[in-house]
Amino acid sequence: MTDIQPDWIAVDWGTTNMRAWAMSGSGTVLAEGASDNGMSKLTPEQFEPALLDVIGPWMQGPTTVLACGMVGSRQGWVEAPYAAVPCPVAREAFAQAPCKTPDLTVHVIPGIKQESPADVMRGEETQIAGFLELNPKWDGIICLPGTHTKWVHVSADEVVSFQTFMTGELFALLSQHSVLRHSVASDDWDGAAFDSGLADGMARPERIAARLFSLRAEGLLHGLPAAAAKARLSGLLIGTELAAAKPYWLGQQIAVIGAGGLSKRYVDALAAQSAPATQVKGDAITLAGLTAAYRRLKG
Amino acid sequence: MTDIQPDWIAVDWGTTNMRAWAMSGSGTVLAEGASDNGMSKLTPEQFEPALLDVIGPWMQGPTTVLACGMVGSRQGWVEAPYAAVPCPVAREAFAQAPCKTPDLTVHVIPGIKQESPADVMRGEETQIAGFLELNPKWDGIICLPGTHTKWVHVSADEVVSFQTFMTGELFALLSQHSVLRHSVASDDWDGAAFDSGLADGMARPERIAARLFSLRAEGLLHGLPAAAAKARLSGLLIGTELAAAKPYWLGQQIAVIGAGGLSKRYVDALAAQSAPATQVKGDAITLAGLTAAYRRLKG
Repeated sequence: MTDIQPDWIAVDWGTTNMRAWAMSGSGTVLAEGASDNGMSKLTPEQFEPALLDVIGPWMQGPTTVLACGMVGSRQGWVEAPYAAVPCPVAREAFAQAPCKTPDLTVHVIPGIKQESPADVMRGEETQIAGFLELNPKWDGIICLPGTHTKWVHVSADEVVSFQTFMTGELFALLSQHSVLRHSVASDDWDGAAFDSGLADGMARPERIAARLFSLRAEGLLHGLPAAAAKARLSGLLIGTELAAAKPYWLGQQIAVIGAGGLSKRYVDALAAQSAPATQVKGDAITLAGLTAAYRRLKG
Repeated sequence: MTDIQPDWIAVDWGTTNMRAWAMSGSGTVLAEGASDNGMSKLTPEQFEPALLDVIGPWMQGPTTVLACGMVGSRQGWVEAPYAAVPCPVAREAFAQAPCKTPDLTVHVIPGIKQESPADVMRGEETQIAGFLELNPKWDGIICLPGTHTKWVHVSADEVVSFQTFMTGELFALLSQHSVLRHSVASDDWDGAAFDSGLADGMARPERIAARLFSLRAEGLLHGLPAAAAKARLSGLLIGTELAAAKPYWLGQQIAVIGAGGLSKRYVDALAAQSAPATQVKGDAITLAGLTAAYRRLKG
């Protein structure tokens, strides 16, 4: 039992893990917690105990929790139905999760859907809201690199349209489960190989399945080092994505959300296309989005 | 111990399994055998016992074996160095595997490589040779659908060039290990969904990573049935491949080798592009290629 007295608790609950922050009313983080009890590991009944494992020590009487992410999916704790684009970035229709603990109230932020081309997001909408909190009146394209990278058109405080690419998942599958897994097994990184893969992917995206096999053949025939093969694989996949996402980023103001190396690669790749992008750290953004949602809830 | 007296034994030894045929000198199959001791499961010392498990009962004195496939790779029984394109379909440089059994002689057919764009094949060269045995003086494009689909330009009894696409492996990875695995879990097939995926893949191949995520979103938002999602996934991947392989197949005589449904899909897809292709059964082709190699060996 810690000695803090949070006014509310922010939770980012994804597929593979969850993070929680004990918050003061003025937006100060009083404590942080995390667990690997992601949505995919839990049945609906297991969400409340999994949450209490992390936030229990912070609770001192009635407690309000605001959560975003896959916790609100059909397989999650409570389904928070998608809002359809175009829709305001800041929405007020939260879903309330069923709780047995009398003092606990959990509100879940809904995701956003697009009917055609069919697309969905859960969690990213809160990052987008957070980014707009920190950058009021911002118009342009927000790119959120990850397992399922999203390109989002934001204008006049609304999400206009978006498109998701499975690029990150393809990279993981190919690196870990394909015939290429030995060819790309390296902790090093070859920036020049990334650049050449990126250029090839953008120039001839249709050749992706052939370029992939070439990585293996280049290793067999010409001794392509694993660090170069891995970086080239990433470049090929991101280049193919950038070729398709061009209608999103061409001539637009661009923000790339994410602190890690992957987001940096997107920024560098866009810079090489004369499309300067601002890189923004993800953690503070998520918390800003949850905080804005809490203010609307209390509003 | 069976009562047959083969003149030689044909072996097709791939990554995941091996098949063997006891052959008469006139080319009749006297017996067949198979095992799941593929190259990937064996250390170099284990190949000979694995072979004897299958062909031992057929041996009556000195025995000549002719083998093709991954058995001749660096990780196989004996490395049979690649011939470089352009090269004759029918070559005579076999590698001899080290054997402890005095009466056993095992010759391994080398694969074919292409320096640039880097590419390799092992096993398919024997199918190509078999096809040319059955279709003398044939010129055109041979497509060999599979885990790693190959497009091969054959002219004047030579392999001129080729290109390998990881399309089949991508389909398997996405069907079994990705976020799409539940969306596409079906034993049924939706031909119309395949056709529409094929058309989309050919028309905008760069969008492949976005189209993949759309399969999931279509399931969530619009209840896309699994049989349709699976067929559409296959169509998208094959369509993307056909877009890239167009310089191979456009305006050419085409043969697609393989008896199964996958090869039929390629034939249908090409027909939809006004590129008629002949479908040829794979088993007889492999055996014809091994038989032709045996004749050259006995020269």
